[in-house]
Amino acid sequence: MSELRQDPTTREWVIIATERARRPHEFARNGHVERELPPYDPACPFCRGNEASTPAEVLRYALPGKDGWQVRVVPNKFAALSPSGNTARRMEDSIFRKMDGVGVHEVIIESPTHNECLCFMEYSAVELVLQAYQDRFNTLKKNPMLKYVTIFKNYGETAGTSLIHPHSQLIATPVAPPETRRKREAAADYQADTGGCLYCDLMHAELAARKRIVAVTDDYAVFHPFASRSPFETWITPRLHQPSFALVPADKLRALARVLTDTLRALHRALQDPDYNFVIHTAPTDGEDDPYYDWHIRIIPRLTTVAGFEMGSGIYISTALPERTAAFMRKEMAAQREAHATPA
Amino acid sequence: MSELRQDPTTREWVIIATERARRPHEFARNGHVERELPPYDPACPFCRGNEASTPAEVLRYALPGKDGWQVRVVPNKFAALSPSGNTARRMEDSIFRKMDGVGVHEVIIESPTHNECLCFMEYSAVELVLQAYQDRFNTLKKNPMLKYVTIFKNYGETAGTSLIHPHSQLIATPVAPPETRRKREAAADYQADTGGCLYCDLMHAELAARKRIVAVTDDYAVFHPFASRSPFETWITPRLHQPSFALVPADKLRALARVLTDTLRALHRALQDPDYNFVIHTAPTDGEDDPYYDWHIRIIPRLTTVAGFEMGSGIYISTALPERTAAFMRKEMAAQREAHATPA
Repeated sequence: MSELRQDPTTREWVIIATERARRPHEFARNGHVERELPPYDPACPFCRGNEASTPAEVLRYALPGKDGWQVRVVPNKFAALSPSGNTARRMEDSIFRKMDGVGVHEVIIESPTHNECLCFMEYSAVELVLQAYQDRFNTLKKNPMLKYVTIFKNYGETAGTSLIHPHSQLIATPVAPPETRRKREAAADYQADTGGCLYCDLMHAELAARKRIVAVTDDYAVFHPFASRSPFETWITPRLHQPSFALVPADKLRALARVLTDTLRALHRALQDPDYNFVIHTAPTDGEDDPYYDWHIRIIPRLTTVAGFEMGSGIYISTALPERTAAFMRKEMAAQREAHATPA
Repeated sequence: MSELRQDPTTREWVIIATERARRPHEFARNGHVERELPPYDPACPFCRGNEASTPAEVLRYALPGKDGWQVRVVPNKFAALSPSGNTARRMEDSIFRKMDGVGVHEVIIESPTHNECLCFMEYSAVELVLQAYQDRFNTLKKNPMLKYVTIFKNYGETAGTSLIHPHSQLIATPVAPPETRRKREAAADYQADTGGCLYCDLMHAELAARKRIVAVTDDYAVFHPFASRSPFETWITPRLHQPSFALVPADKLRALARVLTDTLRALHRALQDPDYNFVIHTAPTDGEDDPYYDWHIRIIPRLTTVAGFEMGSGIYISTALPERTAAFMRKEMAAQREAHATPA
């Protein structure tokens, strides 16, 4: 029999449809062939050597001991929002509220090399990407017009990108996103009721239950949440309370680079290079001390299609049991660790 | 410059990204070829003659003067929810809330003919489909375990179906969907503030502004909403206040069949048979007299991909101006009316 499960962070119910459930390995991409890509593409605006094809960069990092840049952050050439304008809200025809499309939309170029993949990069290179996220976040949060910074990655065509070159994006908006507002409200209510931090308690409950855990390190827990909206949805949460991604200390960022890379690599291997999105959820600038919220990363492999029911109701149907997909991923992570530990 | 627009029915902001905006005709499917399908497929469970391949039907309609059934409603063979079970909510590991997957999941077979398309069917046949929706809704609402009935259609693979045979679905859930709850809350707040019905006022504002109207009949307004989440998002709303789809009188249902068919046909022609979803939003059984809510149909052609930003923030980026897409659709509707008016 199917189960309805409530996500405590949004109070939304999901349907875990066991009658339609597929086994974990059945979600792997069918007949996937490794793409043969060149390390440099003369037509790619993100490749090293083609820097003139992007708007002027706002940040550039190099790897110690290596020539040239390793990470660049540039304004998105087809930005959804623009840095200047009027954030006053205006009414049109008495009922419609609007404002100028003020905001910042940037691209984080994760590597100078065209055919790199975040999940196969060196930990130190991934660490630079995370530092770039945090660096831009901390710069943008000083702009009082901007209320929130969403950092996200679209990987693969069904995840919303056609650009192969490894990159992620950030969009800073002059309004708080509804998703953030709802999540903070649910967490504030939880704190009012129980006195605890919802995200800390959730993570500890997942650690105690064990069955949905993918990996645990000194600093992070990786799990498939109890009320996963879609198969193989994966959360990475800090083990110590920390509301804002902006304030993650350097050593924890280094540790995050390892666990994020390992998790993405295991997904890549287990599911044959699936398309995916990831998003960093964080407290906004005015909530950096919130006792009830923890920043976290949500990874959503694009294995199923959102259809009319989900769009109309907001209730998601998942065709996988997170207990089973997590067990499958634990095996993959263990195999990876073993391969790493074996002397060449 | 882009614009941020607030949807008054959800209070969510969307970004109308003019820098990336495409012209309406550029959203048409590229190089689309009409599918050559047989009127009968021996392997299709929904074709006339293959009735034994579905679970026993719960409803069957015929067209007057025609042989055999025209519309059948059957339980979904791979139902996401099952009719019996325990709706008591239980806690697991002190923080996770769950319940049995109780509910009803049915398929409305819109025609006995395999290669029919809702948008090219006779008005009287579409009327029967709408009657079947309403009939099942009114039966299911008597079950006190069920809190809401979502009626929806997935058309085409990117909209979440691989079954060609014309059909729609309904899912009755033992919890109120979050989308419904939020929309009713926003509308109740609006009524508390202004004394008016948000949906009536919105429809009148769209009628007065004229620029986003696709069609107006005696009974319905069709428009591309001010804060469209995606290009060519289309709403059909009743012109007289009516909270519940369950209570739409027979003559208004007949009129709806016409306007829905015409709208879907114009979309089909203008965009070369796009995949789409539609959903009927309605007040639940305990809100049939709500002074602040109107039922409405939302049609969402699947022309763009929801990516990490939308998933993480809940803010949608649309790359079309509803004012322009509505003008484009008005032309298509006019051309259709003219073709219809011309004597053969």
